[in-house]
Amino acid sequence: MANAAILVIGNEILSGRTQDANVAFLGKELAARGVTLSEVRIVRDDQAAIVAALDALRSSHTYVFTSGGIGPTHDDITSAAVAKAFGVALERDPEAVRRLQNRYGEGELNAARLKMAEIPAGAELVDNPISQAPGFRLGNVFVMAGIPAILRAMFEGIRHTLAEGPPQVSRSVTLTVREGDLAEGLGRIQDRHPEVDVGSYPSFTDGRSLVTIVARGTDPGRLDSVMSETRALAAELGAAVAEG
Amino acid sequence: MANAAILVIGNEILSGRTQDANVAFLGKELAARGVTLSEVRIVRDDQAAIVAALDALRSSHTYVFTSGGIGPTHDDITSAAVAKAFGVALERDPEAVRRLQNRYGEGELNAARLKMAEIPAGAELVDNPISQAPGFRLGNVFVMAGIPAILRAMFEGIRHTLAEGPPQVSRSVTLTVREGDLAEGLGRIQDRHPEVDVGSYPSFTDGRSLVTIVARGTDPGRLDSVMSETRALAAELGAAVAEG
Repeated sequence: MANAAILVIGNEILSGRTQDANVAFLGKELAARGVTLSEVRIVRDDQAAIVAALDALRSSHTYVFTSGGIGPTHDDITSAAVAKAFGVALERDPEAVRRLQNRYGEGELNAARLKMAEIPAGAELVDNPISQAPGFRLGNVFVMAGIPAILRAMFEGIRHTLAEGPPQVSRSVTLTVREGDLAEGLGRIQDRHPEVDVGSYPSFTDGRSLVTIVARGTDPGRLDSVMSETRALAAELGAAVAEG
Repeated sequence: MANAAILVIGNEILSGRTQDANVAFLGKELAARGVTLSEVRIVRDDQAAIVAALDALRSSHTYVFTSGGIGPTHDDITSAAVAKAFGVALERDPEAVRRLQNRYGEGELNAARLKMAEIPAGAELVDNPISQAPGFRLGNVFVMAGIPAILRAMFEGIRHTLAEGPPQVSRSVTLTVREGDLAEGLGRIQDRHPEVDVGSYPSFTDGRSLVTIVARGTDPGRLDSVMSETRALAAELGAAVAEG
């Protein structure tokens, strides 16, 4: 099965100023496509850090998706870092220039904006239907904008190029039980269904202990079995179903 | 200056089911303490993946904070993975057992809950004032719960043990200007203040282009200079201050 990693680039995520939203979006989209998201890394706007992370991730995953750092300002260094990681030149791409010319008037296409047309040699452009400045694909690496609306629009354009596997689907149920009371029986359910990923997520609402059990996998029938066994276990323990 | 990495452990983050909230919290807290958060990794509930990430991060950072995977269920494998990474045994810790005994009645402290008292040899416990089951510190690695309220409470107890540097503070201003119009002048401001981290974050609200400029560093006077130069640049470009 194809797997993927995400490399989020940006000091604003690590300082806590900006809450990342791209990991959850891509995680869901990749699961639906049947691609397993195995790892995420978040690094600073630092060329050496980006290159090191990119080299590690691209050699160990089918796909790498990067998010952030392809705008016009001095802190946008992702394209140069990707070029360096691949050992290729950063070149002004005529088609990228054309797209920017469509968006910006003659006097507006200044040096800073033209930086967004500097693309590593050999890359294919990724469309940006929102603000034109393209992302790109080089080898197994897709370079995308950090702004969530633009990343989503870019992903729409590349989704069909990805390998397709059986979609990973999930079932969940939330029970009025404490996790430690359910744990032993739940472990036995997991053992009976090794190809299902059974997760247990406790929460506390209005002073009440709840546990959400999530079954994830590619065989909906198996997931239904895990769910009905979990409900039977909950009933044995005298727990009620709060949701699901 | 001390630096840090976070290792988030959990399939639920990578599937997009759960939105991580611990990175932004720790990012802010560490910056206030004067510790730079350099990297985050998010990996699956997989021992080999946890061990590999932990080994890479703990050898290259002053501190590593892990989040998730220390509960009572079969998918909670962080403590065992940390023990393996350090090459030490996982042992039942008498003090951890005592804390669990304080929380759970005699019949309630079952095998699953006792798993939360299995701590790598040589580790120090990290207090959990919310649900008692402790985290721990081993070498430069702090192992904490994934539930945000518990992670926050645990961090309160360890903050004072961390090296303290000059707090990283920030100033920001949001301008009614397009990023590409500001970029060149902003790059010159960054060049004049190399010890300040100047970030530029565009957004689009009600069809209006805005840019938020964030200056981050340890010298408030320098940050104020960056802000006043940024405001002067904006005025030159005919932009207004929307916020800040």
